[in-house]
Amino acid sequence: MKHSIGIDLGGTAIKAGLVSAIGDISCQVVRPTHVSAGPRAVASRIVETVREVLAQAEHQRVTAIIGIGLGAPGLILADTGVVHFSPNFPGWTDIPLVDYVKMGLGPRSLPVFMDNDVNAMTLGEFRHGAGIGYQNIVALTLGTGVGGGVVIDGQVYHGSRNTAGELGHTVVEPNGRYCGCGNQGCLEAYAGAKNIVERVLEKIADGRNTNLVPDASLTPKRIAGAAHAGDSLALEIFAETGRYIGIALTSIAHILNPEVAIIGGGIAEAGERLLFEPIRATFVNRAMDIPAMMKIVPAHLGNRAGIVGAAMLAFAMCR
Amino acid sequence: MKHSIGIDLGGTAIKAGLVSAIGDISCQVVRPTHVSAGPRAVASRIVETVREVLAQAEHQRVTAIIGIGLGAPGLILADTGVVHFSPNFPGWTDIPLVDYVKMGLGPRSLPVFMDNDVNAMTLGEFRHGAGIGYQNIVALTLGTGVGGGVVIDGQVYHGSRNTAGELGHTVVEPNGRYCGCGNQGCLEAYAGAKNIVERVLEKIADGRNTNLVPDASLTPKRIAGAAHAGDSLALEIFAETGRYIGIALTSIAHILNPEVAIIGGGIAEAGERLLFEPIRATFVNRAMDIPAMMKIVPAHLGNRAGIVGAAMLAFAMCR
Repeated sequence: MKHSIGIDLGGTAIKAGLVSAIGDISCQVVRPTHVSAGPRAVASRIVETVREVLAQAEHQRVTAIIGIGLGAPGLILADTGVVHFSPNFPGWTDIPLVDYVKMGLGPRSLPVFMDNDVNAMTLGEFRHGAGIGYQNIVALTLGTGVGGGVVIDGQVYHGSRNTAGELGHTVVEPNGRYCGCGNQGCLEAYAGAKNIVERVLEKIADGRNTNLVPDASLTPKRIAGAAHAGDSLALEIFAETGRYIGIALTSIAHILNPEVAIIGGGIAEAGERLLFEPIRATFVNRAMDIPAMMKIVPAHLGNRAGIVGAAMLAFAMCR
Repeated sequence: MKHSIGIDLGGTAIKAGLVSAIGDISCQVVRPTHVSAGPRAVASRIVETVREVLAQAEHQRVTAIIGIGLGAPGLILADTGVVHFSPNFPGWTDIPLVDYVKMGLGPRSLPVFMDNDVNAMTLGEFRHGAGIGYQNIVALTLGTGVGGGVVIDGQVYHGSRNTAGELGHTVVEPNGRYCGCGNQGCLEAYAGAKNIVERVLEKIADGRNTNLVPDASLTPKRIAGAAHAGDSLALEIFAETGRYIGIALTSIAHILNPEVAIIGGGIAEAGERLLFEPIRATFVNRAMDIPAMMKIVPAHLGNRAGIVGAAMLAFAMCR
């Protein structure tokens, strides 16, 4: 069976593994990123990581490795293999990371492909997760920010300048909370982890009664725990978060008419009752009949999404 | 030069013409639709219209006619040639209009294709209007309703169930005005002709000073005239309309990252100062740097868009 190497490049860790054509991961390797050492040093560390995966693969007698896929956060120019800008990699501007990695691997190395990490995860869900069997999907990842990806006719859609799929910056409340991007009322300004915590803190400061302690350790996970225990403020915050996700999905379904919207990331672990039910209730109430047939489902790949998605970049390019 | 026949099927008139590969129209024919006579009678009238265009074409010795394209309002199943539902054609449900037309034309007739009229217009602008030279475009038509179309990688994008491109139902004000579709705060609930007039009438009822007379003859055109003459209410309504279009385009640019948004339809004739300036000001202020590079331009084809767009459906399918 064919395999490829998937690399999930994060601000703190490089996670890599060998991924089979049916989406199984083996030969996993994790290394610290050490961003402060600069782009060429990070590229060298990616090369070491690849070499270690290859060594393990050889040990397991896996030979049919077709390529290397790299998922990286930020604005990635997929066609040229360049990191244009990445908030987690301060100072990286137009870094030809794929070229650096290729140079490190040497002239007879495997082909290397890179895309935005959320695009890679979307591709992973499309091929081996909740998107199996569909042709047109969208995916949202609810983490620190709200990432998005769009698959059209079976391929990740990049738009004219590589920024398509910024679903977290769909406007849901035009005079609402300011978003990190500078715009007012983006979905991310409501459904990003930092913003969920901020909304709780603001309501506590307004005198709302709650069992939540407004300290630096407050997280969406803790808020979800309080909601499951019946805390009314925590329940309200998740209901409102779900409502805003449902509003964004209404716009997205009217614009793109996808078959399914896949929702993953840490916040999505709040689950059916806290999050997916208000999302679906809002969406079904607002969307027109036919676009409303879009399914809204949790991501399947969980913490495998980064490596599997990155590996699928290589499968998508090497036929 | 190759030609095709474009037919713009409206609720009151069938407009047809012969369109060359460079987008010129000749041999125009207009007939009343007589919707009340039913789908088969309308199909017969379309057939008569086609025959008359063909007769004129023969007279002008045009022979290389490759096909017939039909643009129709409503939810059109482009792949099967079916009118699923159309607000202007009461009682039409799942009408196989392309089959009816083909039967009327006889077994050796030209191939016939149908799509939603706004998709056809979008294709017309893409090939022969403001979209020339781009690959990924969106188009808005501001009329009674707000229609939309999406071209991705050079082709009209239909989505999973033929409803993609409903850009008029992007949510711009989640607790705002009710839209004809049942949702709250769609762009159409602000930028559709009826809604623009309603907003003026509401403000007059609230006691706002204006030179506009709140009677049944109030139209967006008259409101635009008052705005050009300096009427503060009329100016405010257009500024607000432009702002909401700019908010919708922000979401659309973040989701799709197109190269250009083309804005046509009667309301767009309000022009640069009343409409396009507030649209662009809002959009540039809200959209992230790279998606904000999307151009926002008026449609070029004007009242030729219906026939030229419909004809392009045939050019797109007959290569």
